[in-house]
Amino acid sequence: MLHLRSCATTPVGLWSQLDERQGSRHEAPCLSGWTTEKFGGMNADFYGRLFELLLRLRANYLWPAMWNNAFAVDDPRNAPLADDYGIVMGTSHHEPMMRAHKEWTDHRADYGNGEWNYATNRDGVRRFFDEGIVRNGARESIVTIGMRGDGDVALESTGNLQSDIHLLETVIADQRAIIAQRTGKPADQTPQVWVLFTEVYKYYDAGLKLPDDVTLMFADDNVGNLRRLPLPAERGRRGGFGIYFHMDMHGGPFAYQWINSNPLPKIWEQMNLANRYGANEIWIANVGDLKPLELPIDFFLAMAWKPATVDKDRIAQWTRDWAERQFGPDHAAEIADLVTRYAKYNALRKPEQLRPDTFSLDQYREAERVADAWTTLLRRADRLEPLLRPDQRDAYYQLVLYPVRACANLTLMYIAAARNARNARQARASTRAEAEEVRRRFLYDHQLRDTYNHVLAGGKWNHLMDQTHIGYFDWYPPENDIMPPVADLDLTGVAGFGVAVDGDDRSWPGFYLPPVLPTLDSLTRRPTYLEVYPRGAAPIAPVVRADQPWVTLREGPAFGVSPRERRYWIDIDWAHAPVGRSEAAVTVSDAGVTITAKLTAIRATAQQERDARGAYGGLAGAFAVPVTAFARRTVVDGVRWEAIPDYGRVAAAMSVFPVDAASVSDPARAPRLEYDVYLAAAGAYHVDLVTGATLETIPGRTLGVAVTLDDGPFAVKSVFGGPEGVAQDFLGDQHPVTTANNARTMRFTVTAHRAGRHRLVVAMIDPTMVIQTIAVSQGPTKPSYFGPPSPDHI
Amino acid sequence: MLHLRSCATTPVGLWSQLDERQGSRHEAPCLSGWTTEKFGGMNADFYGRLFELLLRLRANYLWPAMWNNAFAVDDPRNAPLADDYGIVMGTSHHEPMMRAHKEWTDHRADYGNGEWNYATNRDGVRRFFDEGIVRNGARESIVTIGMRGDGDVALESTGNLQSDIHLLETVIADQRAIIAQRTGKPADQTPQVWVLFTEVYKYYDAGLKLPDDVTLMFADDNVGNLRRLPLPAERGRRGGFGIYFHMDMHGGPFAYQWINSNPLPKIWEQMNLANRYGANEIWIANVGDLKPLELPIDFFLAMAWKPATVDKDRIAQWTRDWAERQFGPDHAAEIADLVTRYAKYNALRKPEQLRPDTFSLDQYREAERVADAWTTLLRRADRLEPLLRPDQRDAYYQLVLYPVRACANLTLMYIAAARNARNARQARASTRAEAEEVRRRFLYDHQLRDTYNHVLAGGKWNHLMDQTHIGYFDWYPPENDIMPPVADLDLTGVAGFGVAVDGDDRSWPGFYLPPVLPTLDSLTRRPTYLEVYPRGAAPIAPVVRADQPWVTLREGPAFGVSPRERRYWIDIDWAHAPVGRSEAAVTVSDAGVTITAKLTAIRATAQQERDARGAYGGLAGAFAVPVTAFARRTVVDGVRWEAIPDYGRVAAAMSVFPVDAASVSDPARAPRLEYDVYLAAAGAYHVDLVTGATLETIPGRTLGVAVTLDDGPFAVKSVFGGPEGVAQDFLGDQHPVTTANNARTMRFTVTAHRAGRHRLVVAMIDPTMVIQTIAVSQGPTKPSYFGPPSPDHI
Repeated sequence: MLHLRSCATTPVGLWSQLDERQGSRHEAPCLSGWTTEKFGGMNADFYGRLFELLLRLRANYLWPAMWNNAFAVDDPRNAPLADDYGIVMGTSHHEPMMRAHKEWTDHRADYGNGEWNYATNRDGVRRFFDEGIVRNGARESIVTIGMRGDGDVALESTGNLQSDIHLLETVIADQRAIIAQRTGKPADQTPQVWVLFTEVYKYYDAGLKLPDDVTLMFADDNVGNLRRLPLPAERGRRGGFGIYFHMDMHGGPFAYQWINSNPLPKIWEQMNLANRYGANEIWIANVGDLKPLELPIDFFLAMAWKPATVDKDRIAQWTRDWAERQFGPDHAAEIADLVTRYAKYNALRKPEQLRPDTFSLDQYREAERVADAWTTLLRRADRLEPLLRPDQRDAYYQLVLYPVRACANLTLMYIAAARNARNARQARASTRAEAEEVRRRFLYDHQLRDTYNHVLAGGKWNHLMDQTHIGYFDWYPPENDIMPPVADLDLTGVAGFGVAVDGDDRSWPGFYLPPVLPTLDSLTRRPTYLEVYPRGAAPIAPVVRADQPWVTLREGPAFGVSPRERRYWIDIDWAHAPVGRSEAAVTVSDAGVTITAKLTAIRATAQQERDARGAYGGLAGAFAVPVTAFARRTVVDGVRWEAIPDYGRVAAAMSVFPVDAASVSDPARAPRLEYDVYLAAAGAYHVDLVTGATLETIPGRTLGVAVTLDDGPFAVKSVFGGPEGVAQDFLGDQHPVTTANNARTMRFTVTAHRAGRHRLVVAMIDPTMVIQTIAVSQGPTKPSYFGPPSPDHI
Repeated sequence: MLHLRSCATTPVGLWSQLDERQGSRHEAPCLSGWTTEKFGGMNADFYGRLFELLLRLRANYLWPAMWNNAFAVDDPRNAPLADDYGIVMGTSHHEPMMRAHKEWTDHRADYGNGEWNYATNRDGVRRFFDEGIVRNGARESIVTIGMRGDGDVALESTGNLQSDIHLLETVIADQRAIIAQRTGKPADQTPQVWVLFTEVYKYYDAGLKLPDDVTLMFADDNVGNLRRLPLPAERGRRGGFGIYFHMDMHGGPFAYQWINSNPLPKIWEQMNLANRYGANEIWIANVGDLKPLELPIDFFLAMAWKPATVDKDRIAQWTRDWAERQFGPDHAAEIADLVTRYAKYNALRKPEQLRPDTFSLDQYREAERVADAWTTLLRRADRLEPLLRPDQRDAYYQLVLYPVRACANLTLMYIAAARNARNARQARASTRAEAEEVRRRFLYDHQLRDTYNHVLAGGKWNHLMDQTHIGYFDWYPPENDIMPPVADLDLTGVAGFGVAVDGDDRSWPGFYLPPVLPTLDSLTRRPTYLEVYPRGAAPIAPVVRADQPWVTLREGPAFGVSPRERRYWIDIDWAHAPVGRSEAAVTVSDAGVTITAKLTAIRATAQQERDARGAYGGLAGAFAVPVTAFARRTVVDGVRWEAIPDYGRVAAAMSVFPVDAASVSDPARAPRLEYDVYLAAAGAYHVDLVTGATLETIPGRTLGVAVTLDDGPFAVKSVFGGPEGVAQDFLGDQHPVTTANNARTMRFTVTAHRAGRHRLVVAMIDPTMVIQTIAVSQGPTKPSYFGPPSPDHI
């Protein structure tokens, strides 16, 4: 038993921190509501189905639901049934000795002074422990040992770290004495696990002595980033190491309980570390309501069963196979891509963490690009539905159509709310229309939820979409979905037009300095635009003109709901533009009012064209390089940067393989990537590496990387060298930000001693660093979510 | 002429930084719109009326409107008319040599290379200057000298400070040569002024040489806080010193152009410094649209004319006399109080700077207290109207009723928006009703504006309330008023009640820890409360009970628009409460759900009662002391702390008089105030002095104060010793915050070595410090706008 590669899911309720007696809507999270309606509770009828599911998925270990549930007492059939199925039962990380926390809260008065405190109520708590082991008898289990505070909070301190450690050692010694006594075997003959969750790490780091046969289980950071891997010196322990992983969280840094936002490449990247570093004795995942996470659960368990079949370069194939198992071969590729895309987009920022201002409306058309991605996905998902057999459509709705529709709608709702706020500031007459768009999408979200709950398969999965998911204002879900606030304008007596330009959130007339368009250049060949909109109810008839013949204008719709708002795309006819820097102006005129936007165009010389061929960059503005588009790669002793397809925000990210390669102190001798870039001028440049949100996992090892330009000295940085220090209680004040962004930006500065072509070099310092994009810019950076996008960026 | 105590107003337009050609709504700020409609522009018909007004108010100096106006050329009658009236004309601080900036922008091509740059276009600019002096002839004037950048922006640097100073000295030398040549008299026979505005200070501080006969005019910080006063060593200069003061601003840190937000005690406090420190050669005020500032203009000019008649203790009487002049004696006292209150409330935070979250809904009933103050004022203003004669009612509307109604409505609208957001988070069913309240008040604002513009006196003052004033998002006014954004809730299937408690923004059921009420004590005798509200459409029938007989409950309306929300006031029947600390619980139950709020009550012992008699403080929680409620005052050499009635947020603030007393280095020998306080426990306490927003005005002198407890060592702090450093370009990054708050908090820490009665001592370090309240607290401070209020606080 101890040597199985054990894998398990824990159903919802584990993290539902709300007490039924409080009457919260969360008294009935989705899975609880569903089991109550369909089975009458979390009884053996329900668990029998769940055990079957586990076995089909090749899992054999379970932490049962808690808070309002007590597996062993809710239904006396539960525990024997698990044993019949060969399911190894445990209890969650904070429920030691095979007893549910609810058993304590319901009967605490029967145990000493009723305090869940080993310092003040050792005898009472010990008797509670003892009863758990007695009741469990000879059933196959992994006993959780140790102790936290009352109800999954931190242990109440006895005064200082050393006395706390001493107390915990006493707890564990007593627990093992009970186990030995009640099983009649030495304690080390009963499988046990001690979970390092949140503050528990500090006791271990400070030297708490743990018997060698106990499995040491490292918890992630609640958002799928491993916090710790075994050191080589630790690996010999008999009990080995496990991982407690989250695909769902009711807790800090923020709850995510609604729908799948766990892309497989990210799960692979982290669990591959667990595998390679030897934390593979037990893997357990918190899967919340179970149902919405079908795909990542399947993947996590497949990976646990046989890692080689789901290697990074085979994830897409695995997903296609998965889709084929559900829907047959005809549409498997398309369905695989749909479920891959929606999870990827949801991981740009989890739906619960979206806000109206997440994606920038004025920088890099960021909100627009995200909206386009979702709209395209939605169209594909809608298009496929009628092509499926009728008996496949329920499954399609659950697995594909509902998540795509609901998540697309959610994102588009927030972006409409952003336009509402922006349009109010810019005095656009469409402000109210955007508010109505927000309201329409807010209502549509409820319609989708109701269809899932009530219409889908005749209500078979009722309650499973009960989870609120709009309007988070703290780590926990709001009681009700909250529509993003929308503004309105006083349009009394207003007439005329307004103008806004690419890259600027202001509006003219109104701001006292004139508008300036981004500079265009013949190497980048990026167009720009301005938008013209009515400010009052009356029609406008703006005339838009450029004062140079080589400036081209093309009218199209603006990004928004109002057809009265127009976008004028501005580009350069480079064949006819003067070589070098030229100034132009684009004017918008109506009813005697003229707004003049300045424009600079830079056409490369023939020499510049030649120098820049095949390089990234240009003559103006920030740019980003796709990390996979390196010109040269240096492999050192078999250690090399490799692509992780579909990781993060890009088509592929880069990381060092093998993942347990030794750190390098001299970047000049490290595995390297070199990119050809073209820089418009000499001077200092920011080089922003956008990385994954991963953490330092090996004590004493940093999470570092190095950058230089040409043959200059390398700048070496590590993630936690800066302000993102590890706080005493958890992971520092940047952790909520980094995990919400699901990315981190490491800023380097390099100096180009001349304009022209250069080699930008990225060198390994430590393994386990994942790089998504490389952005190069000068001067102050305007705020945006992603930064300048590379061509392979969403 | 040079020795007159000169006082003046400058009409609107001076700060309208928007160009008519841009078609902005601000092309026609209020006074421009009004003069265009009534006079056909800023011509002699208008200026004749204005000159009369100035003389009636005993002013004789004017900077004319600019940007879209050029006094001397718009109407050739203007300048001679000023001379006929005996009005001394000038031009604004950035329009030298009696010429309007518009004259330059209209004709720049006629002057050299057209650049407003003395380094590159000296001859062109010099000829422009020359023509101004020639045209002005022998008319009585004060010539503005020096130079800024093109259009009231900073001077374009020539490379470094020394070369810039050299350039400015050249400018001034050339200007004076022109003056001497064209007047045929030595330059020092023509009155001149050089204005230290924004960046111009740095040239003076760095040693720019200014001829002794030129009046040196110190500008305030744009928000009515003086930046500089003459040093004793400077005072002998022939030209003396002046003050450029703002009661209206179109510029940084934020624009305020709508309505009076300048309380007279604050104007008095600052201009009294000007007077006592000898900056009284010329006083000029930026008064924007003129009309909304009737009262402070009158006060400013009265003070300039004869400071003694409006000494701090006579401001209320002066205001009563002012009201009697307008409305007769019958209601003068009430009207005086109404105009005093509304300006005072507007200065808590200027209307343009109000946001939904300005005042806290959950701390100290802060939003509620502000709402109550405005509602009471509104009721008084409404009640008085029918008591006035019909022929007085137009004047009453302009001076009292419109500002009280509009400002009360505006504040109540923002507070409703705060409740909307809070109620959404708390899942209150009234969320939408609060959104409707916001919308109703937003529309009512426009109705009031339209009544002022169109109904009042048959449209006599049309356009004077055109100014947008809702929804500022940058320093400049929004093009249109923007309704604060409002949220909505999904109430599908929701039932039951929610509970919120005093001092906490969370809501139960929903938050996983139980609610805890503030601790009550028998010395403070402050009650507390909880609110109970429906979360769905169905009625609720909550039963609220306390588990101790000495806890009293009283039901009343909650703070909000919905009568279905109830507040339960919770107090202690101290006569029957146990002495010492007792625990109680207040439960709210309905339909099987119970929420239990914990409550602690502390009844003082007889000894504690005796010790605390007459002292501020108590046995629990933060408290504040009215600054005028000192137990002892120490006067040193005639220097003493005195009250400034009605200053700031309180009934009276304290400052040191005489205001030019010498600074003190040893606080133990300084003028002091001692307050008797009662502290519940030994330990460290925060002592927060809430001061005025005033600045350091004397180079080399700090703005400091000292605090201690009992006979402990004094802690000495000065305002700009901390993070609020003076930035190179303006007044540091705290300046926008401090001026928006119109207050500053200086935090001291004192240690009480025992519980019980103590002496809290505040000692002078520098004069010109104004203290509004003293708040005492322990541990972390929950966010609120005012902090704990003293009994005399709004």
